[in-house]
Amino acid sequence: MRIPLDREKPVALPRQIQAHLERLIRERLLAPGVKLPATRELAQELGVNRATVAQAYEELVAAGWARAHVGQGTFVAEPPGVQVAAGPADPRPAPLNWPGLFSRSAQIVAADDDRTRALVSAAAATPGVITFAGGMPDSGLFPTEAFRRVLNDVIREDGASLLQYYPAGGYPPLRQYLSTYLLRFGLEARPDEILIVNGSQQGFDLIARTLLDPGDAVAIEEPTYPRALQVFRSFGAQPLAVPWDAAGPRVDVFERLLDRHAPKLFYCQPSAHNPTGLSLAPETARRLLQAAGRHQVPIVEDGFDGSLYYGARPAVPLKAMDRDGVVIYIGTFSKVLFPGLRLGWLVGPRPVLERLLAAKQLADLHTSALLQAAVHRFCERKLLDRHVVRVAREYARRRALLLAALRRRMPRETTWTEPTGGFSLLVTLPPGLDAEALLPAAIERGVAFTPGATFFVDGGGARTLRLSFSSVAAGRIDEGVRRLAETIKAAGGSTRERADRAAVPVV
Amino acid sequence: MRIPLDREKPVALPRQIQAHLERLIRERLLAPGVKLPATRELAQELGVNRATVAQAYEELVAAGWARAHVGQGTFVAEPPGVQVAAGPADPRPAPLNWPGLFSRSAQIVAADDDRTRALVSAAAATPGVITFAGGMPDSGLFPTEAFRRVLNDVIREDGASLLQYYPAGGYPPLRQYLSTYLLRFGLEARPDEILIVNGSQQGFDLIARTLLDPGDAVAIEEPTYPRALQVFRSFGAQPLAVPWDAAGPRVDVFERLLDRHAPKLFYCQPSAHNPTGLSLAPETARRLLQAAGRHQVPIVEDGFDGSLYYGARPAVPLKAMDRDGVVIYIGTFSKVLFPGLRLGWLVGPRPVLERLLAAKQLADLHTSALLQAAVHRFCERKLLDRHVVRVAREYARRRALLLAALRRRMPRETTWTEPTGGFSLLVTLPPGLDAEALLPAAIERGVAFTPGATFFVDGGGARTLRLSFSSVAAGRIDEGVRRLAETIKAAGGSTRERADRAAVPVV
Repeated sequence: MRIPLDREKPVALPRQIQAHLERLIRERLLAPGVKLPATRELAQELGVNRATVAQAYEELVAAGWARAHVGQGTFVAEPPGVQVAAGPADPRPAPLNWPGLFSRSAQIVAADDDRTRALVSAAAATPGVITFAGGMPDSGLFPTEAFRRVLNDVIREDGASLLQYYPAGGYPPLRQYLSTYLLRFGLEARPDEILIVNGSQQGFDLIARTLLDPGDAVAIEEPTYPRALQVFRSFGAQPLAVPWDAAGPRVDVFERLLDRHAPKLFYCQPSAHNPTGLSLAPETARRLLQAAGRHQVPIVEDGFDGSLYYGARPAVPLKAMDRDGVVIYIGTFSKVLFPGLRLGWLVGPRPVLERLLAAKQLADLHTSALLQAAVHRFCERKLLDRHVVRVAREYARRRALLLAALRRRMPRETTWTEPTGGFSLLVTLPPGLDAEALLPAAIERGVAFTPGATFFVDGGGARTLRLSFSSVAAGRIDEGVRRLAETIKAAGGSTRERADRAAVPVV
Repeated sequence: MRIPLDREKPVALPRQIQAHLERLIRERLLAPGVKLPATRELAQELGVNRATVAQAYEELVAAGWARAHVGQGTFVAEPPGVQVAAGPADPRPAPLNWPGLFSRSAQIVAADDDRTRALVSAAAATPGVITFAGGMPDSGLFPTEAFRRVLNDVIREDGASLLQYYPAGGYPPLRQYLSTYLLRFGLEARPDEILIVNGSQQGFDLIARTLLDPGDAVAIEEPTYPRALQVFRSFGAQPLAVPWDAAGPRVDVFERLLDRHAPKLFYCQPSAHNPTGLSLAPETARRLLQAAGRHQVPIVEDGFDGSLYYGARPAVPLKAMDRDGVVIYIGTFSKVLFPGLRLGWLVGPRPVLERLLAAKQLADLHTSALLQAAVHRFCERKLLDRHVVRVAREYARRRALLLAALRRRMPRETTWTEPTGGFSLLVTLPPGLDAEALLPAAIERGVAFTPGATFFVDGGGARTLRLSFSSVAAGRIDEGVRRLAETIKAAGGSTRERADRAAVPVV
């Protein structure tokens, strides 16, 4: 540890050391529980006697800043006194006017810190609250132990090269595996038409920086995945909504947008749509592809995973029907395996894939080859196939329970989508109700959901809410819906007059 | 596997299946060695008799497209005939005019595909060539086995939550560890002033998108790390060079740039500089900080790692002297541990760190918590400290051998830097020589290096080349330098007349 000592100061060295450490502890730079360097070690580093350091430590202990454990060393204590317990203040003011230095992009999007999200997170962590807000796979179903074993195998066999710098395109055997895997869904891509990325989110980002300039129009399905929308916005694009109906994004609206606004791309989730769980009809798919080809507008297809579906057959990806090479497909292991690996892939025609590769290289050089190799091994041993069968069955069960509970319990004039894939469905509340305003009352009754407005492009969707069934235990679904139904009934449903959104009386 | 069948076609179903598979094999969508689905499985999926699929497979085998292994199944064969051996053609033309669709950013930077890089890579893979071109840690020194064990421990203890979505800021114990770790170098940062990123490269990217708009000026040390330069360029920034002298980036030039061009940031590597290995003098550091504070210009400090140094004491990071909060510090585990983990961190004042966090969330949600937890465990058990002692000793040895060989063998008028940290040094050739032009002749003699021009902002540095000593075995260093010296002598050194750069006669 570097401690600046001034040997010409009239302050004794032990006192200087003690004052420095005391400041670090007070400012929480040294947190409670942290072990201080051994006296001999620090003495050597500072070029002082060991006794000097020992004396400084003793004074820290005497003042309550540290605690000595015989034979173990000296540890930072919980800060004494109330003036510190009040919370760490920032000791270093930033005289730079940072907000004035931010780029236009940085000014557009801030971190997730809004009130509703905080509410939902807090609810999720509250015991007893049944939360339908988590749009993620159930970590209770994770094949963690099997993954640990393949990870061991690949490190043992090839660790040194997997931990070294690696080519940006990805781990070749994984690209090869995906090439064959995608044929299951009729999607034809050679390994060199596949780029490994850090999950879908990095896919959005690389596509945006490759295709978008500030001010460009972007066509986007509505409702849609908010984090994709945010990325396009952060690049200065103007999103234009193409609303979903039962068959998919409305082709008539899409064609009108193409004619009038010349969007630079069209983003959609054709199957297992988040939040609705719907898939688009084959006829819609064909017409969207034709229109996009005619207008030279790429379609960005956010593919869930065809393996997780609740109908008779998996949906056919747009990319599988893409004769003209207009589709860039985004795939991910986050839904069928582990979100935390941050592992996904892009499929696209070579000319654009090369640029996406260059963007990937600039963004972070490459994705961890170790994790890619482990997932490849996992897939190659058919462990993924086995896992998917198991989780698809469980998610189908939860979906069925949710639909049954909604039918049984929801008040009239409440409607919902019937998901054919994915993790969630979208509920529309009776007229006059606002999902965001309803949330605190719902949490009060022990149930949480995601207000639907977040999935809409221009402030619509106030009456909608998303229910995710993927991470709610089967035995709690009915009770969760009961609580939600009670909340809606208590809020008055359609019988109340329509009130100002910000002031809907919900309790 | 989805195979479109047309039951009304006059073509028999086995023939349709065979033709489809044959096309996939011919177009290399099914690669040699891939196992075809079991006949029963495919028959069920396509809704045909098993005999139908079996017949299709038999025809594929008969035509040489596949190979049957009794009891194992049918596998794709090496494609028969010469017309295919000529290489896979792209079967799907892309009628979209992709280049016309690229953003300005995508047009600025293409992937690494230049001739020199290809030459260097090929040389590195050629047996017998001693390559000083790899600016990376030696994977032969990796603590792979120890890392495997900590990875096992963290998966066993906490796998499910480490493989789920995770907060963007990073794994809290790792941020806490770094907070304490950085105190060793006098750098004070609370955990919430530290953001985990995918290596330095993502650090550059997040900083660029948070601070830069197209057309902004950026001050940048010269020579410098080319991948940082590329990122700033890709955001449309105009780089302005601040040349290094023996004490660091020249403060007088920096101040002139501040006055005239109002750059949005200043990028530099104050210690263990790549490519020179130099560190800046404390006096220079103080003057740079003062000038930056006065002009409200953030300094982006690309910190190597203070643990790997060759002098009496590690260099003090600029950030440790940063009283005004003008420095954003970039740290990485790529140099002291594994590059392939893609694990690094940013340190900055809260106002800018919050924006960087928002940018990180948009870029890829978060960095793998599993890898973060494994590295944290590795550090906490002092395995990193032990590893660093070991590799620092080995790199110091290689550095000393390289310097000794240069002194012994280099022709007059060849000069080089004496590194105090890092993995490399910069050689300046005698007047009249051009490093890039010299490279093919050097490889011919069995030695490779990185031409220095790539480290310069505006086409300078043609006479320089980088020698990395980190990944060259100690026993080969002298021989490598001997070959390089021979190459330089054969090229004529200073005795030849200065020739046109593109046409220097080097052999």
